[in-house]
Amino acid sequence: MGAIIDGCPSGFLLSVEDIQSELDRRKPGKGPASTSRTEEDQVKILSGVFEGKTLGTPISLIVENKDQQSKDYKALKNIYRPGHADLSWDLKYGIVDYRGGGRASGRETVSRVMAGAIAKKYLLAKAKTRIIGHAVQIGQIKASTFKESEIEKNAVRCANAASAKKMEAYILQVKEEGDSVGGIAEFIIKNPPVALGEPVFDKLQADLGKALLSIATVKGIEFGSGFTVPSLKGSENNDEFVVKGSKISTKTDHAGGIYGGISIGTDIIIRLACKPASSISKEQKTVNKSGKKTSLKIEGRHDACILPRLIPVAESMIAITLMDHYLRQKATKY
Amino acid sequence: MGAIIDGCPSGFLLSVEDIQSELDRRKPGKGPASTSRTEEDQVKILSGVFEGKTLGTPISLIVENKDQQSKDYKALKNIYRPGHADLSWDLKYGIVDYRGGGRASGRETVSRVMAGAIAKKYLLAKAKTRIIGHAVQIGQIKASTFKESEIEKNAVRCANAASAKKMEAYILQVKEEGDSVGGIAEFIIKNPPVALGEPVFDKLQADLGKALLSIATVKGIEFGSGFTVPSLKGSENNDEFVVKGSKISTKTDHAGGIYGGISIGTDIIIRLACKPASSISKEQKTVNKSGKKTSLKIEGRHDACILPRLIPVAESMIAITLMDHYLRQKATKY
Amino acid sequence: MGAIIDGCPSGFLLSVEDIQSELDRRKPGKGPASTSRTEEDQVKILSGVFEGKTLGTPISLIVENKDQQSKDYKALKNIYRPGHADLSWDLKYGIVDYRGGGRASGRETVSRVMAGAIAKKYLLAKAKTRIIGHAVQIGQIKASTFKESEIEKNAVRCANAASAKKMEAYILQVKEEGDSVGGIAEFIIKNPPVALGEPVFDKLQADLGKALLSIATVKGIEFGSGFTVPSLKGSENNDEFVVKGSKISTKTDHAGGIYGGISIGTDIIIRLACKPASSISKEQKTVNKSGKKTSLKIEGRHDACILPRLIPVAESMIAITLMDHYLRQKATKY
Amino acid sequence: MGAIIDGCPSGFLLSVEDIQSELDRRKPGKGPASTSRTEEDQVKILSGVFEGKTLGTPISLIVENKDQQSKDYKALKNIYRPGHADLSWDLKYGIVDYRGGGRASGRETVSRVMAGAIAKKYLLAKAKTRIIGHAVQIGQIKASTFKESEIEKNAVRCANAASAKKMEAYILQVKEEGDSVGGIAEFIIKNPPVALGEPVFDKLQADLGKALLSIATVKGIEFGSGFTVPSLKGSENNDEFVVKGSKISTKTDHAGGIYGGISIGTDIIIRLACKPASSISKEQKTVNKSGKKTSLKIEGRHDACILPRLIPVAESMIAITLMDHYLRQKATKY
Repeated sequence: MGAIIDGCPSGFLLSVEDIQSELDRRKPGKGPASTSRTEEDQVKILSGVFEGKTLGTPISLIVENKDQQSKDYKALKNIYRPGHADLSWDLKYGIVDYRGGGRASGRETVSRVMAGAIAKKYLLAKAKTRIIGHAVQIGQIKASTFKESEIEKNAVRCANAASAKKMEAYILQVKEEGDSVGGIAEFIIKNPPVALGEPVFDKLQADLGKALLSIATVKGIEFGSGFTVPSLKGSENNDEFVVKGSKISTKTDHAGGIYGGISIGTDIIIRLACKPASSISKEQKTVNKSGKKTSLKIEGRHDACILPRLIPVAESMIAITLMDHYLRQKATKY
Repeated sequence: MGAIIDGCPSGFLLSVEDIQSELDRRKPGKGPASTSRTEEDQVKILSGVFEGKTLGTPISLIVENKDQQSKDYKALKNIYRPGHADLSWDLKYGIVDYRGGGRASGRETVSRVMAGAIAKKYLLAKAKTRIIGHAVQIGQIKASTFKESEIEKNAVRCANAASAKKMEAYILQVKEEGDSVGGIAEFIIKNPPVALGEPVFDKLQADLGKALLSIATVKGIEFGSGFTVPSLKGSENNDEFVVKGSKISTKTDHAGGIYGGISIGTDIIIRLACKPASSISKEQKTVNKSGKKTSLKIEGRHDACILPRLIPVAESMIAITLMDHYLRQKATKY
Repeated sequence: MGAIIDGCPSGFLLSVEDIQSELDRRKPGKGPASTSRTEEDQVKILSGVFEGKTLGTPISLIVENKDQQSKDYKALKNIYRPGHADLSWDLKYGIVDYRGGGRASGRETVSRVMAGAIAKKYLLAKAKTRIIGHAVQIGQIKASTFKESEIEKNAVRCANAASAKKMEAYILQVKEEGDSVGGIAEFIIKNPPVALGEPVFDKLQADLGKALLSIATVKGIEFGSGFTVPSLKGSENNDEFVVKGSKISTKTDHAGGIYGGISIGTDIIIRLACKPASSISKEQKTVNKSGKKTSLKIEGRHDACILPRLIPVAESMIAITLMDHYLRQKATKY
Repeated sequence: MGAIIDGCPSGFLLSVEDIQSELDRRKPGKGPASTSRTEEDQVKILSGVFEGKTLGTPISLIVENKDQQSKDYKALKNIYRPGHADLSWDLKYGIVDYRGGGRASGRETVSRVMAGAIAKKYLLAKAKTRIIGHAVQIGQIKASTFKESEIEKNAVRCANAASAKKMEAYILQVKEEGDSVGGIAEFIIKNPPVALGEPVFDKLQADLGKALLSIATVKGIEFGSGFTVPSLKGSENNDEFVVKGSKISTKTDHAGGIYGGISIGTDIIIRLACKPASSISKEQKTVNKSGKKTSLKIEGRHDACILPRLIPVAESMIAITLMDHYLRQKATKY
């Protein structure tokens, strides 16, 4: 997998470790519910960084695929796997590389995380912006409370230790059934740069939405109070402006930190509905390329719950979008 | 309001009526719950159409604002209205046109509808694509059944006549309180062109998501089973491929018609969470530009429920996105 | 004609006069060699400016066409005029608006000049950048010396008064023949902002080249010593770096102020080869849409030499390109 | 060097040899006037091609640099080499990788040739388009006649064998002086696809101009009769339309095959003024980063005349631009 990041300002301190540490967060967990593929994912910087600093020119990064086993996929080459893009690609391109490493594979998120690592570091340095991602629901199990320091301590990235245990147990059970499970992830952006987003088409929520909906497993997104907002009246939903310290802030955060498409510096809150992985070993009915009914079991090594690994991917897409708007904002005022 | 549509193929039959009829759908309803502003919104074609056909060059459309009353807004020029973009714009630009016709106004959706009218006609002619938008929830009142022919018969665009009446009554009640109410709209795209969407960043749901989240009132979006998907297992959520007639289709539609970011021709299903309008006449607390506490009542003429008028706007954004991808797809295969 | 300028920073002082004064420079001259069309070209600002300052949102400008006489063009609707785009448009679009006001008309340069006026004022305010355009050759008559203050004193924008007289006389003679004549214009950019241009595809000369070659009459462009450079050796052509005042500058300017695609602050020098106008009243042979041989005289009102009016158009394209890169450069360094 | 080509249609036959053969044309010649660097430049296809056909997804190509000798450059790290981008980069980025492999090096044209090879093959297959590049002038020596079959037979790519010998001798003489020499290259595009180019900003000559002016050594470009056009009258310069076979063509080609920014299928003719290479071993005066006067000799291995190697690079940029417009044109008509 490669990533070419254009537009990163020059003179910014950047090391291999900055990127590797985020890649490591994306790796499969060590628990029994995770894929047994060994994804070493060692990043190399090919260009764009010199003596520890960015040059201002494109940063080219590469991770070599070491554990690709094309034979795993050959048996399925004429079958439309349910939930997968096989049929889509046939319709779109008329020719498909049925082996596992293609652009329809979750492997492509490696590139997102590499770019996101740079954006995260940049935003932290420039604006103290932090993006906190965590699992708020897996299957029907919800996180009962939020304690940030718990998140990276458990395999599911849940902010409550007890809920995490239940989630882990549930994933294991689903895995034993040869099935998979989805969930909901939440992202809290602390100290987002102010004034990001354009007033009409490139609203901040629109660009964040596009970035996050480009992750294959995401089926829904909401900002602030999201799908509960329709039940509120305007007088309940409108966030009262108040002064906090020297800044204007809001008393509530139904809007999720974005007003008229533009950030005001209060927390941006996003939740993503994540589907269960399509690759399951349980038998499924489908058709093949000739339109004949058939069934299949996808035997490979797959995550029973992709959500914990989605979190650094989504954080990356958020960071990339914010950094892009941050740099754009530099030319906004005379 | 103006709209310049670039990229519409030449030789396509297009009349003023094609656009006006969609603009008329966006107008305020006649019921008591709607704004009393007279928005005549007569479109003129300035360029791009000759002897009833498109020229292939940009189509320039204009609607003159006839009922603008800037004085309505002057009283509020130093106050940050809750839920509005006043503070955002101060932070972003440092200078704001406080009068009502700006780009943060819902008036800008006139332009979206004008462009959308062209895209809708094009998609219908080329692919028999239809986009059906309807209100599935207003406040906490849900549409109980779906009968397409009911939608345009009532002021709230609900597909069930009885539910529509309840919704209308509720909106009227909220209006009398000087308040506003939101809702959920659903969009069913019948016969979408196949093979639209790119495999990675420009997935069809990503571009539809951006287009729809660029509408100011939208706080959440979901595709197919959306936020209910996290509770399903892979074996439940995966849509079984089946043959229907001469085409491969799916037995269920949890995915909302998009697989791997690409349409396969089955119905695309989208739902939008729409917030209650921010402008309410009920008294609200806030601060002014000096950071002093104050309160305000927004007296102007406002919709108590914007959802019915959002529907043609959102349909337009869907149509524009699909047409854009349709034209892009023309260069995909050798 | 309209122009929508997106991306101009907010808070910049801008008046109708700033734009009108540049439009006036584009108008036909008063001499006998010019078109007798009355092009009043009064600009109106429709949006984007409030209380004398830019808002940061798109600036929408309009000039109404008052002197359009479609009947002038009807006689020619089935004839491919030599040098014109009639055949091109038939091949490209299959449908053509044969009336004069289309996008293939020189009228479209009104829009370029409107946008250019803003960019010129911005660059002058920010970087003391000035763009000096003048005619260095008309037909085979060359300007003998350069005195900047002469340029706007004569109808051909020549920097030498005596040469200007010869040029004017020559144009008049050509006009009496029912013919037209081209020329070469030179542009000297004083105090260009430093560090504009990207290292590979968006080199400053590449973007300036595209902008200027998008003007219909331009058939060639050269930077610095241009087409004389091939005759020089490297040791002659390389510009020696020297210190002037507190800045590094160059002893010569064969490169035209751009090194490796990036400006260093020394004068940027560009010359454009401009063809004679295609519309002439002299009889010409051609074919019609059925492929039959025919001949035509284009009787309308046309400039015998378009070069003087090209100059503000080209200055505008240069200014727009520089301002675009100037704003882009704001995000280049950490 | 790498190249990522996005947008190539799927199902197109493509092999490593297709690309390698063009890369080989870019290699240093075998004559005494060429650089002695061994640039093996073996291309590998990393993705986008499967079983000999394009997949429709990005084609990723790589050529490893085998002969980089960073120490050659270290001596010069604090000196602004005349004609080079050292100062530009200091001004733009404030940090520079002084080693030779950067984006300001002619090595980057490897990527252009890789992409161009694909575009050339595509255009030939789709439209029988061929791009013939040849040297029409080196130093002050001009090619006396044009015989296409001669071009690839001599080291300078001149279409006249006798002129080629004189050019080669001249280059050798200049090389012995430790100097370099430029020239003029001409490109004839036979059977260009019709109807390419947009009417206003993206005129075909504008996009070709940008593409070609993005090559570092190009200082001027002209289409058709170019810089001789200003001396012609409209009646001389206008290309008379005539019927040839079943197609409308032109009697002359002053316009270079493009009318109103759009191709009509007649030959497109372009000439490029190419500067002498900046790196010469002859002593030159300059300043260092502290602004002190100094002198330098650039000892490395450099071409005394880069023009012959520029030709496949420029052909590639032409092909890429044409293919891009060709694919764009697919969505132009209803």
